[in-house]
Amino acid sequence: MIITIGRQLGSGGREIGKKLAEALNFAYYDKELLEITAKESGLSRNLFEQADESAQKGITTGLFGMRFPLLSDVLTYGGISHEMLFQIQSDVIRKLAEKQSCVFIGRCADYILRDRRDCLSVFLCANEEDRVKRIIAYHEKKNITVEKARDLMEQVDKKRSTFYNYYSNKTWGVAATYDVCLNSSVFGVDGVVSLLKAIAEKRSKIP
Amino acid sequence: MIITIGRQLGSGGREIGKKLAEALNFAYYDKELLEITAKESGLSRNLFEQADESAQKGITTGLFGMRFPLLSDVLTYGGISHEMLFQIQSDVIRKLAEKQSCVFIGRCADYILRDRRDCLSVFLCANEEDRVKRIIAYHEKKNITVEKARDLMEQVDKKRSTFYNYYSNKTWGVAATYDVCLNSSVFGVDGVVSLLKAIAEKRSKIP
Repeated sequence: MIITIGRQLGSGGREIGKKLAEALNFAYYDKELLEITAKESGLSRNLFEQADESAQKGITTGLFGMRFPLLSDVLTYGGISHEMLFQIQSDVIRKLAEKQSCVFIGRCADYILRDRRDCLSVFLCANEEDRVKRIIAYHEKKNITVEKARDLMEQVDKKRSTFYNYYSNKTWGVAATYDVCLNSSVFGVDGVVSLLKAIAEKRSKIP
Repeated sequence: MIITIGRQLGSGGREIGKKLAEALNFAYYDKELLEITAKESGLSRNLFEQADESAQKGITTGLFGMRFPLLSDVLTYGGISHEMLFQIQSDVIRKLAEKQSCVFIGRCADYILRDRRDCLSVFLCANEEDRVKRIIAYHEKKNITVEKARDLMEQVDKKRSTFYNYYSNKTWGVAATYDVCLNSSVFGVDGVVSLLKAIAEKRSKIP
């Protein structure tokens, strides 16, 4: 069985995903995917980092949602298109999913694995106040302000949604895109983990 | 405890809400609200029907989401504004919620009751194919086509979202608006009912 987790920045997606994977004895893939994909493809990890869902140089969308490849992109990615890097990563995700039960965080995994019948696709959100607190705690060493945390929250979510909407035929963060969405401010991290465990068990019994 | 259910047309919200209310021994309010509100206010049920969330003559929003009251509105509602009718219905919802545990379907109940700490706000969606089938079955006597069902699906959801977005400070159908969202195509009607029962029980234990 595969669980994919989309998430708002600061909703606790990473922590919840990890705890859920531990509770179910599933493999867990978040940033780890970059390393594995670089190894599998023989390309530099740097390339995949720069083309990742919330990278500084992400997909640039212009009018009508079209993507205009920039000269700087071509230079940055060493002539390899964003789409090609996405395809390489998608192949890795599919291979990993065939080997064992996994939790995947972000990176359009729900869309990449849409043809599998054993997928539970999850989206996690949280109240703004809690998200800001979590972002500040995560960047503890940098000692960022509430304002900066708020900026990050908006920027990263914007990047994740642009990435998701570009590569999938669905809309990021909209309830109808997912099987289940939960607010971690309401149930707490452990509450969400135990609910998702129960939901995954119910899902696994559906043919 | 209060459970509010927002829903896509054809996602089985009514059936799920009723079964959940039965399972938890809660009162259930959907269209019933119109009758009660008419009685409480001494105004005609017709008025409330015409100002309901998916009424033919709903809120008309113009540029920048502003509402332009039309002369026809004033005539239709007998000089009583849409906002006033909404306020009357909101008071009824608040009163009912004080008396006993309830399930409310639609009508911005989650927003109206946002200051209560014992509310679980739910959104239900389903895959398009299932929604179309359910809409056709619901209008069985009219024998509507798939195309007509698809039209209804879009129109009613558009009306519900306009109503919700106008009266609340949130966005209809977006995961972050709700505590929990579930896809009834994935879990089935009874599956959703039993998941929501478990989730409500968990929620009721959180102070």
